[in-house]
Amino acid sequence: QTHTRYISAHTPTPPSHQVPRPTELCFHFHFMITPPPPPPPPPPPPLSVSPAAERLRQLLAEEDSIPTPTLFTEMDTLQQDGDELEWKESARWVKFEEKVEEGGERWSKPHVSTLTLHSLFELRTCLQTGSILLDLEGFSLPQIVDEIVDRQIADGLIGPEVKDKISFVLLRKHRHQTKKAMHRSLADIGKPSNPTPSKSVRVVVRGYPAQSRSMNDISDTPSTDQLKNKFMKKIPRDAEASNVLIGEVDFLEKPFVAFVRLAQATTLGGLTEVPVPTRFLFILLGPRGKTKAYNEIGRAIATLMVDDLFSDVAYKARDRDDLIAGVDEFLDEVIVLPPGEWDPKIRIEPPKKVPSAEMRSSVLNINELGQMNGSAGGGGGAGGEDDEIDTCGRFCGGLWLDIKRKAPWFCSDIYEGFHVQSISAVLFIYLGCITNAITFGGLLGDATDNYQGVMESFLGTALAGTVFCVFGGQPLIILSSTGPILIFEKLLYDFSKSNDIDYMELRLWIGLHSCLQCFILVATDASYIIKYMTRFTEEGFSSLISFIFISDAIKKMVGSFKYYPINRGFKPDFITSYKCECIAPDQGESSRPIWSRKYMDWGFLSKKECVKYGGTLVGSACKYVPDLALMSFILFFGTYSMTVSLKKFKSSRYFPTTLRKLISDFSIFMSIMTFVGLDMLMGLDTPKLIVPTEVKPTRPDRGWLIMPFGKNPWWVYVASFVPALLVTILIFMDQQISAVIVNRKENKLKKGCGYHLDLLWVGVLMAVCSFMGLPWYVAATVISIAHIDSLKMESESSAPGEQPQFLGVREQRLTGILVFVLTGVSVFLAPVLQYIPMPVLYGVFLYMGVASLSGIQFWERMKLYLMPAKHQPDFSFLRHVPLRRVHLFTLVQIICLAVLWTLKSTFLAIIFPVMILGLMVVRKLMDMIFSQHDLAWLDDILPEKEKKKKEDDGDKKKSKRRPSKTSHPPPPPSPPPVTIPMDTITPPPHSDSAPVTPSTPSPTPP
Amino acid sequence: QTHTRYISAHTPTPPSHQVPRPTELCFHFHFMITPPPPPPPPPPPPLSVSPAAERLRQLLAEEDSIPTPTLFTEMDTLQQDGDELEWKESARWVKFEEKVEEGGERWSKPHVSTLTLHSLFELRTCLQTGSILLDLEGFSLPQIVDEIVDRQIADGLIGPEVKDKISFVLLRKHRHQTKKAMHRSLADIGKPSNPTPSKSVRVVVRGYPAQSRSMNDISDTPSTDQLKNKFMKKIPRDAEASNVLIGEVDFLEKPFVAFVRLAQATTLGGLTEVPVPTRFLFILLGPRGKTKAYNEIGRAIATLMVDDLFSDVAYKARDRDDLIAGVDEFLDEVIVLPPGEWDPKIRIEPPKKVPSAEMRSSVLNINELGQMNGSAGGGGGAGGEDDEIDTCGRFCGGLWLDIKRKAPWFCSDIYEGFHVQSISAVLFIYLGCITNAITFGGLLGDATDNYQGVMESFLGTALAGTVFCVFGGQPLIILSSTGPILIFEKLLYDFSKSNDIDYMELRLWIGLHSCLQCFILVATDASYIIKYMTRFTEEGFSSLISFIFISDAIKKMVGSFKYYPINRGFKPDFITSYKCECIAPDQGESSRPIWSRKYMDWGFLSKKECVKYGGTLVGSACKYVPDLALMSFILFFGTYSMTVSLKKFKSSRYFPTTLRKLISDFSIFMSIMTFVGLDMLMGLDTPKLIVPTEVKPTRPDRGWLIMPFGKNPWWVYVASFVPALLVTILIFMDQQISAVIVNRKENKLKKGCGYHLDLLWVGVLMAVCSFMGLPWYVAATVISIAHIDSLKMESESSAPGEQPQFLGVREQRLTGILVFVLTGVSVFLAPVLQYIPMPVLYGVFLYMGVASLSGIQFWERMKLYLMPAKHQPDFSFLRHVPLRRVHLFTLVQIICLAVLWTLKSTFLAIIFPVMILGLMVVRKLMDMIFSQHDLAWLDDILPEKEKKKKEDDGDKKKSKRRPSKTSHPPPPPSPPPVTIPMDTITPPPHSDSAPVTPSTPSPTPP
Repeated sequence: QTHTRYISAHTPTPPSHQVPRPTELCFHFHFMITPPPPPPPPPPPPLSVSPAAERLRQLLAEEDSIPTPTLFTEMDTLQQDGDELEWKESARWVKFEEKVEEGGERWSKPHVSTLTLHSLFELRTCLQTGSILLDLEGFSLPQIVDEIVDRQIADGLIGPEVKDKISFVLLRKHRHQTKKAMHRSLADIGKPSNPTPSKSVRVVVRGYPAQSRSMNDISDTPSTDQLKNKFMKKIPRDAEASNVLIGEVDFLEKPFVAFVRLAQATTLGGLTEVPVPTRFLFILLGPRGKTKAYNEIGRAIATLMVDDLFSDVAYKARDRDDLIAGVDEFLDEVIVLPPGEWDPKIRIEPPKKVPSAEMRSSVLNINELGQMNGSAGGGGGAGGEDDEIDTCGRFCGGLWLDIKRKAPWFCSDIYEGFHVQSISAVLFIYLGCITNAITFGGLLGDATDNYQGVMESFLGTALAGTVFCVFGGQPLIILSSTGPILIFEKLLYDFSKSNDIDYMELRLWIGLHSCLQCFILVATDASYIIKYMTRFTEEGFSSLISFIFISDAIKKMVGSFKYYPINRGFKPDFITSYKCECIAPDQGESSRPIWSRKYMDWGFLSKKECVKYGGTLVGSACKYVPDLALMSFILFFGTYSMTVSLKKFKSSRYFPTTLRKLISDFSIFMSIMTFVGLDMLMGLDTPKLIVPTEVKPTRPDRGWLIMPFGKNPWWVYVASFVPALLVTILIFMDQQISAVIVNRKENKLKKGCGYHLDLLWVGVLMAVCSFMGLPWYVAATVISIAHIDSLKMESESSAPGEQPQFLGVREQRLTGILVFVLTGVSVFLAPVLQYIPMPVLYGVFLYMGVASLSGIQFWERMKLYLMPAKHQPDFSFLRHVPLRRVHLFTLVQIICLAVLWTLKSTFLAIIFPVMILGLMVVRKLMDMIFSQHDLAWLDDILPEKEKKKKEDDGDKKKSKRRPSKTSHPPPPPSPPPVTIPMDTITPPPHSDSAPVTPSTPSPTPP
Repeated sequence: QTHTRYISAHTPTPPSHQVPRPTELCFHFHFMITPPPPPPPPPPPPLSVSPAAERLRQLLAEEDSIPTPTLFTEMDTLQQDGDELEWKESARWVKFEEKVEEGGERWSKPHVSTLTLHSLFELRTCLQTGSILLDLEGFSLPQIVDEIVDRQIADGLIGPEVKDKISFVLLRKHRHQTKKAMHRSLADIGKPSNPTPSKSVRVVVRGYPAQSRSMNDISDTPSTDQLKNKFMKKIPRDAEASNVLIGEVDFLEKPFVAFVRLAQATTLGGLTEVPVPTRFLFILLGPRGKTKAYNEIGRAIATLMVDDLFSDVAYKARDRDDLIAGVDEFLDEVIVLPPGEWDPKIRIEPPKKVPSAEMRSSVLNINELGQMNGSAGGGGGAGGEDDEIDTCGRFCGGLWLDIKRKAPWFCSDIYEGFHVQSISAVLFIYLGCITNAITFGGLLGDATDNYQGVMESFLGTALAGTVFCVFGGQPLIILSSTGPILIFEKLLYDFSKSNDIDYMELRLWIGLHSCLQCFILVATDASYIIKYMTRFTEEGFSSLISFIFISDAIKKMVGSFKYYPINRGFKPDFITSYKCECIAPDQGESSRPIWSRKYMDWGFLSKKECVKYGGTLVGSACKYVPDLALMSFILFFGTYSMTVSLKKFKSSRYFPTTLRKLISDFSIFMSIMTFVGLDMLMGLDTPKLIVPTEVKPTRPDRGWLIMPFGKNPWWVYVASFVPALLVTILIFMDQQISAVIVNRKENKLKKGCGYHLDLLWVGVLMAVCSFMGLPWYVAATVISIAHIDSLKMESESSAPGEQPQFLGVREQRLTGILVFVLTGVSVFLAPVLQYIPMPVLYGVFLYMGVASLSGIQFWERMKLYLMPAKHQPDFSFLRHVPLRRVHLFTLVQIICLAVLWTLKSTFLAIIFPVMILGLMVVRKLMDMIFSQHDLAWLDDILPEKEKKKKEDDGDKKKSKRRPSKTSHPPPPPSPPPVTIPMDTITPPPHSDSAPVTPSTPSPTPP
């Protein structure tokens, strides 16, 4: 008999859905435990879905217009406190379970409700046997209880003699787990005092009170404590409550079960911990001796009630069978942990993410669960869609689209900036910007004989930054001087000087040409090229810039050891022999004027003066500067490590979340303050930040406006077209790759990008800066990343236990504008800024560089080299691409970066951004080595039209080399079934049997 | 009809077990899905256990003598590689699941197998319908396959026409997931090459090969690759394999299922990845289109096979129904996660601990599952059992027991020391010891005018330590000079000097008296007092000592800023004005001899010489010492933080486990080496460790032996009894509390304690040291804790994914002996030791202090003050004791420590160890404030005889104050059921029905 059965999964693959398979017998365990279901609505569906799923599909499809409210579930158990009965809150659910720790008088951490299969099956029986009252018109608990009990009596489930007892028990007051542990039931307030509560139970019950109303312990209106409960803010506004009441009584022989759905959600006085109207009531009273089992059933129904799908079912259920179907569907989806591999006592922390109800609803419909533990995620992680940037063919089409895209956000770009996080972001980026401005200003001054100095750098940064942040396409980008521009200026100045060409005028013309070229690039939608900047290019570039940042910071630190040499041989005891004296030069040979020779007291000259006047410094102490190098190191390293530690503080356990977030947001500011304070305390003469204090050109012989004509021959105006081309390429690549990095999909930007608009403004600013003789500005990768990092938003966790999600970045223009306005007025902030030691700012730079490396997949892949395979994190690309391919990919990237790093150290540094083109070429060549499947996981795929061709080429080559690999990007959903042709197979005799035959194992009473 | 059902939990509370409850209807879901079970063996058990559990209980009780081997399960799926069929390994289980990442060609991390309920029920059906071949005599795969197929044909499950096809499929070669991904099936080796493998499938099957043997792709002997597989070491030696083969074929209309248990475990060639003999085979071949469902069934059976309980059942099963019962019991114990609260795609990391099979077996028997998520753990964490120390009433009884307990371990105490970990422990503790010896030696020298100096300190430490480690009761204890003894010596020396009593002789007599007193304490088993040193006392003391360590380290660091003052106003430019000159004293007033005045070139004198000869140091540089303070800070803080980071490195992802462990073990050594190197590199004159280089008493006028008589009047010999008493108390308390801390149950020491023996040797050493004029030694808390920490053992994780467990401490005498022998020969190591800067050693001290705080509950409780309740870790005491009681307890402890700290700073420091008695008194008083229940969780309970009285007293007081609290330590297992007396309840008509009535919902075909 038993051999005639087939196996058919409940989760068949799509093909089996398409064709009815009458020869198969569907095994659904629901069939085993479901009482004869009502005949399915005609016509029966041809697919092999379970009747429960089918029923639910119809139910949920009915009126999908109104979303059901969120349910807050509270479970109260009946307890005897002294001689008094009361309902005591024992657990609650918003999304996850929180249990009352009996001894600890506290809420447990929110955790995933682990249930036993038993309790679920028992709950199912409860729902099958108990009273189900749907859409009951209820206005107060006593009335509802009356209705329930009457129904049970009418159904013959209980005798009329226990009615009053049940009512009495159900109307006992409810004690909630509130902050004050000793606090008694909230419902006590406003109730006539009961002088002998300890006896009342027995007396009242014995005496059969005529008025059940008098037995009511529960007030009708919510108490002030309920209203004041801070937990309210964790519950959505529209939430309704479901109350689970579980108790063990003496007078029942069999369980009393009722499931009630009220027609209208009603606040039933002190029933619920929070003043949320109750919609559902589940009551289970049973004979004594089974407390644990009852509790488990209560936890099961409570867990079901907060299940998105089941709560939908509960709201829409038409009858008992709908509820049962809901339970069955729940059972169908549960995840089972084997008892030998998991300790049921472990409270499971809520996961980072749970499947959404829609996902599961669709599962319900198509009835195909993903393979568990399997190739989850699919290709979803790879392959971005940058629909925003596309050639539309029209003149200035991209620019027009950019403006159309960004304009509607303009207002929100301002008001969304008002947030405390913005303050820390502004301070952080401001310090980064002025440090950069001073550094580059100083270098530019050296390179151009102060034609452009620190003052110009400050003004230019402020001007360009403000304009860009107000009008630019991506206001999160921070403009700054960059290395390649610096090198270009240096070469240009040297060229002008040696060829007697006026530098400033030449520079102006180059700027104008370059501006024009930018306009042409904008008009022709040239930014479309960023489509080819995949993760490979982008991460390579940003890693390189980060490395440069880090190495610069460290170099500067090491430099201070050279600048302040330490006297290694110093013996404290021989301090008497360490001195540095200024010896007057030999009088005869001196070329100094007579007066200085005469009146000079050489011994009192400072080191600089001594050298100036031609004296000789003699003594073992002259070469050395004590303490400053070590102090600089302490400041540098201290700032860096304190910032790192404070950033991590967000995930520590100490202090309330808000404070922790504040500390984390202001970590850089706090570190800077701390070490500025330490520096002031030590009072050592560490190098400080010096900003100019007066607004005037660094070089007195130039003004604020450069005249375009007059100083150079006419042909220079034309010829400057050629160097302008180089500048344009520099600017274009630097700007757009930074924009690509900022617009990374990991940042979840919502307001769209504006590559064309960005470039337009960069071009305009080129011209303006050239006219004013200010440096040129372009997007700075690392500072822009730091800007974004400091503006990241996380969701406030709503339900207890829900993990905060990264929501995106506070996209607005305010922080950028403020940063640059502050930069502009820094001239007046000099008295404050002069207390900041430079090593502290180098520490900030180091932090910026290191922080911008984090979250870069390339960096994660580099770390993989050092990890044994079994310790490697579970990156999705590791599940899908063999490790050696991953390593090869990383190696190619490392070699590229090493080459770039080497080139950067030569004169080729000037074409540094152009090398990104080289990276893009390498990326294209990698299509030859790597399959598109691998690249889809490790990188993005190149745009379609190109890819197609590449792929065809690649396939042929690859299929020779690696025959066992499937090289198509979307891997086939399931391997082709094994086909062995058959000659003499006769159809089995039972192939026409019904989907479910009586031969299915059926329970029999023992 | 449906109303007549009752609910009865499968997990009733014990009372319900005692009495048969015929009125109850047991609801077991198995009943619903089990086909009519065979009649239970007579007589039917009276308890309401499920028949599955009953069946298993009998089965497993049968022959419990032979433990069943561990099972290694491998799941292979049928794949088509090109035109060729092969079995490809897709997952394996030792305890947890490891999946083959298809794309990644690697093993996934071990994870808990999450199953669907479906797959389990489908598996159950498979076992019900398929062929079950138990104790099959199998010697090769072809023969076994023949047997299976023949059986299926005999049972009418398949037609004879598919026999060859099935055999052919089942005998395809197996490809295992090995390191070399491109490696083809291991079984290929030694097999005649097949020139046209791509066609063979169809050809052979079409042509109906006469010899099924020729179709065999699998070799009979394990290949070298199998033998070389490194995974073998993760599998226990006695393991057997179970192979799960899952495939989808074209020629079957219904699934082909077979479960085979071989009579003897047999190595079936290349079937299994590792050369482990196969015992079980599960084969599932089915019609195409259901791959996922089949895979899930395969995962389900594989998970079951590695389940401790089910594998037992599988080994002992007599028939199909035993297996089904095993599945049912498994289902009964599974843990269910609700789909809305958990994403099935998450791979669950293996838990730290899983319930043992015994636990679960007992569950099976008594059939009472603990309440889930509930008050797990019980009082298990609290209340230690120190059976080892007890008064036995006899003279020297405790000592005799100690010797009896420790003697058998003596040999293992030596040879267990041979381990690489010992090296790092020795180096670490050695450096701690010599630093201590030097520090205390210096201080003692100052206090006693060099009667005891650094040399004596070294020799004494070496002597006392070696003797104690060789013969002591707890060789993990490290002896050292301690603060109280130092203060005592100082007072004693001052007293002798002012009263003209010979210090060394007086000291000798005090030592002798004290030694005698120790013997008396040993003989009378006085160490029993440690019973009253609960966690409260012990943690208070050790925290205090740790704080002293930390504060001393920091004080010394801060001291170096005073010793090497920094010139804050230094301006590098004005170096010329900074000098320090030695000015000759005014010649007229000088008292110096003539010669010095004449020939002295004052300018060339060093600072010290200048002062010595009465010169005056003039100049702004004289007061300052550059660089050294900051360098010291860098060395100090660097050593500390590098040690901390390296210690943490053990849990990082980088490098193989062994290397990581080595780095972690040698973290202190590596940090010291690094910073010694840095110091040498900088070449600065930081303070270095200076050890004496010659063995001779520090003070030349004393010898190595002190004569007991002759220098003091006779009454001094007697009167020294009084100070000796103080010393004895000092020593006793200091020694025993350190021993208690070392013997903490958290340390899992196995060789027992030896309080009496310890004290005996401390007494003996007192006398010896007194005779030799060496300092007195007693257990040093912090260094002993450091010693234990550096010798901690963790289990090698056996099954992949199993967490390493803390096994205990490498208890041996070798490390201690080596430390002290090294200390003894340090005199000859001086040339090496002199490179170690003191700040590095202070950093080590800081680390020791901080490390000894970790893992102290008191410290954890202090941190709770700073944490909001919801972020607090899930300590078991927090589940059982209200937070405010915990805080109160902590507060009392903090106040006690604050008082002690204050006292320590006064002259009372001498009776510091006696204050422990004060702590013990406070602890007793706390019995008045805290309930025994709370104390049991926060602390240990005081010994019985005392507790009884206290409790009675306390109860009366408490019941007035906190009426709602239960104050008995063991909380009642379940609250008393609600009893409402009933007057007119008639027994329900169905109260005599059978346990399971036909009214249970039963499945009906739709």
